[in-house]
Amino acid sequence: MVTKAHPPVLRELVQRLAKLPGIGEKSATRMAMFLLKAPEEYVQSLAENLVRLKKDIHTCPVCFHFTDGALCSICADPTRQTGELCVVETSADLLAIEESGAFKGRYHVLQGTLAPLDGIGPDDLRIGELLTRLEREAVQEVILATNPTGEGEATANYLIKLMEKYPVRLTRIASGIPMGGDVKYADKVTLERALQGRRHVQ
Amino acid sequence: MVTKAHPPVLRELVQRLAKLPGIGEKSATRMAMFLLKAPEEYVQSLAENLVRLKKDIHTCPVCFHFTDGALCSICADPTRQTGELCVVETSADLLAIEESGAFKGRYHVLQGTLAPLDGIGPDDLRIGELLTRLEREAVQEVILATNPTGEGEATANYLIKLMEKYPVRLTRIASGIPMGGDVKYADKVTLERALQGRRHVQ
Repeated sequence: MVTKAHPPVLRELVQRLAKLPGIGEKSATRMAMFLLKAPEEYVQSLAENLVRLKKDIHTCPVCFHFTDGALCSICADPTRQTGELCVVETSADLLAIEESGAFKGRYHVLQGTLAPLDGIGPDDLRIGELLTRLEREAVQEVILATNPTGEGEATANYLIKLMEKYPVRLTRIASGIPMGGDVKYADKVTLERALQGRRHVQ
Repeated sequence: MVTKAHPPVLRELVQRLAKLPGIGEKSATRMAMFLLKAPEEYVQSLAENLVRLKKDIHTCPVCFHFTDGALCSICADPTRQTGELCVVETSADLLAIEESGAFKGRYHVLQGTLAPLDGIGPDDLRIGELLTRLEREAVQEVILATNPTGEGEATANYLIKLMEKYPVRLTRIASGIPMGGDVKYADKVTLERALQGRRHVQ
């Protein structure tokens, strides 16, 4: 779709934009056209953001969320409860939970899930660091918030086994019908989980 | 959705990416996460592409398509037929036609459509330059390829009136059911056009 009629810099831009997640060549072309017409200042700042992103951002040495400081904003926040540790797969999961405002404790970002077929074992995740935190910090509860997918479940199960001997409360986030969802459209596994996880209401 | 848990450079990046067409905050966040993990080299080149895009690209002084040279690649190509001039709204339309391979002549990019309500009149488009080309170049046919939308049609009609006195063949691209489309799902106006534009087949 990118033809000779595109100047090389535009062709390159489209090809690179098309590598972004969820962006095909058509959307990339549309973006490039938009950028061509956009104010110089905006495009410049976007370019600077990209350069600074790779220069300034690294992972927090405590929880492995990303940060531009010595500690991430959550680990550096003295008002966050230290007793609860929420274990997530990625920073994106952490941010989603933060946005919900439903959790006031601290996090631990595993930076992935166990995936033996892809050669990703426990040593490739931040599991050792998690165990060290359990010993060092006054953690009372570990909330396993890996995704309810095959790999996320396997990782949670592995962690449950691993933490058996630690004196912490271990919990797993609930699975079920999402709010606003519809029982008749839910898949079998979700329905099974929703029923297994049923709660007393009266 | 962008919270305090995002470092400022990431927050800015998400906000700027979310201004791209078809990109909301959720996709922008996903892209930013992808960029965080992407190879340094790729992100650097993307940033350079953006800077060069604004520096190197300008419009062709003949047809007003964009280019990084003195003339655009089509105007500079001596093998393109000079007798046919295809008038389009934007460079994106030109590129779509180029990709189809269905046209071997030259183009004229109006850089918009007449939109009196938005204060865009004939002087804001490249109409004067189009008329100059008709006089200077050996144009035998002008193909009006503005979009079959309210504004595109109005622009085409305006050009038809304007070119009445010029000794050129004036044509309009066909409207009808798109290939692979379905008559029963076509809207009334498209059906009307498809019937009006019916062709003899035997």
